[in-house]
Amino acid sequence: MKQPLIPKLAIVGVGLIGGSLALALKAAGEVGEVVGIGRGKANLETALSLGVVDRITTDLAVGVADADLVFLATPVQTLPAVAIAAAHHMKPGAILTDGGSVKGSVLAKIEPALPEGIHFVPGHPIAGTEKSGAEAAFDTLYQDRRCILTPTEKTDAKALELVRQVWQIAGSEVVLMEVEKHDRVLAAISHLPHMVAYSLVNAVGSYDRYEENILEYSAGGFRDFTRIASSDPTMWRDIALANRDALLEMVGLFERFLGELKEDIRLGDGERLYEFFLRSKQSRDAIL
Amino acid sequence: MKQPLIPKLAIVGVGLIGGSLALALKAAGEVGEVVGIGRGKANLETALSLGVVDRITTDLAVGVADADLVFLATPVQTLPAVAIAAAHHMKPGAILTDGGSVKGSVLAKIEPALPEGIHFVPGHPIAGTEKSGAEAAFDTLYQDRRCILTPTEKTDAKALELVRQVWQIAGSEVVLMEVEKHDRVLAAISHLPHMVAYSLVNAVGSYDRYEENILEYSAGGFRDFTRIASSDPTMWRDIALANRDALLEMVGLFERFLGELKEDIRLGDGERLYEFFLRSKQSRDAIL
Repeated sequence: MKQPLIPKLAIVGVGLIGGSLALALKAAGEVGEVVGIGRGKANLETALSLGVVDRITTDLAVGVADADLVFLATPVQTLPAVAIAAAHHMKPGAILTDGGSVKGSVLAKIEPALPEGIHFVPGHPIAGTEKSGAEAAFDTLYQDRRCILTPTEKTDAKALELVRQVWQIAGSEVVLMEVEKHDRVLAAISHLPHMVAYSLVNAVGSYDRYEENILEYSAGGFRDFTRIASSDPTMWRDIALANRDALLEMVGLFERFLGELKEDIRLGDGERLYEFFLRSKQSRDAIL
Repeated sequence: MKQPLIPKLAIVGVGLIGGSLALALKAAGEVGEVVGIGRGKANLETALSLGVVDRITTDLAVGVADADLVFLATPVQTLPAVAIAAAHHMKPGAILTDGGSVKGSVLAKIEPALPEGIHFVPGHPIAGTEKSGAEAAFDTLYQDRRCILTPTEKTDAKALELVRQVWQIAGSEVVLMEVEKHDRVLAAISHLPHMVAYSLVNAVGSYDRYEENILEYSAGGFRDFTRIASSDPTMWRDIALANRDALLEMVGLFERFLGELKEDIRLGDGERLYEFFLRSKQSRDAIL
């Protein structure tokens, strides 16, 4: 029998992101044993009973001890502490990677604290659904999606190559990107839209000129548009804190465009309004 | 055989909005003959062949001459001129209504110009899809939707009651609202979100720090969120011009909330960020 690419895989945080990677590698026959590590016993037991993982433990040190690859899929704010703790219990030559949606501020804490002989490869699969927990995991989550890896000058080339293979096996197109660029791109296409949606719902919900809540009048368009304002407040607090500089740059850029549009409305400049809307429609239609 | 509520109905602009009202009244057996009026011969012929209307003409004066009810479903910017022209060719006692998404500035032009004996009832069905044209019309578009009527002190009570019945027959809940409130509510739940979506796509699309277009990296969330930025630029130019004051008020309100959020991000105030996101999530979840 062919040796799997990863004889022993440890997943820290067995939710949608972590569990789906385990299932994808299992489906491809490229993983031997999968250890699920987490703080919540109930979620771990669900993961075990669903076959997402083969063994479970709440003890990080025990769970990562003999792993060839450790994948961290915990919230962004906890990533540095978990990564450093895990690294100190991993075997020499083992590889550590993550799925965090912010890289710069997280890497700045992790890289200087890594012990010799542990290879860290920062990653970010661009995938997800609104669901969470082990029962949300499925083996095709990463199929036809992108996974961004952000190697630094400290990243081991062989470790990078292995992590790249892992995501390709899961079905993703792997893109290498500089850390700073990753954080700016994600601020633009993901973090900024969330800030805008949260602000929009709060602005409309706060409008108190009339007795009733005018959100009651919202129809399908508003509801679709603001769906992302239902996202987890803790997760988004952490992202806003962790990607502060890139996010502030993007909010500023957005404010300038909205300000320009507002001025065109104020002046009643139909020609400029038409141009503004047309340009947006053309950009939007191009990514359909 | 029971007499239908509307013996002769004229629809000016036989697209999704106008055509669907005709079909709903036909399905209910509450309309005798439907005349379709428009400028585009091809669309009118489609409407005729699909049975959306029973007779077609490009001559407004001819089309509205013997109608009991005339429904205007033309773009907002053309509404005043079309309404005034139609009113001058309608029979005494006939009723004119519309489906325009802005009321104040449109009414200010129409009401002083109406001839004696023609009853105008301003309306706005809150329904629609991305599609347009006669072939997009269907008889259940207005089912379980809201239709806002904005009677003024000049509105005839019997005419209002008839238009109310028409929308109820089409399946809608009819809400009476002051003109100014209508325009503010729509600015908040519909016009502002469109301005925000258009600005977001233009801001992200303009980001030129990197050679490639970062919109290429956008995943499902961004695409869903910005779907409304694909809307018709002409229609939105007209709405932005026609509802200027209410829209400027709402853009200003939104800017204050985004500015508050930006300041919390800048200060790294996790507690306030969490509160902001949680408040938004709770409002959004309440309208699910």
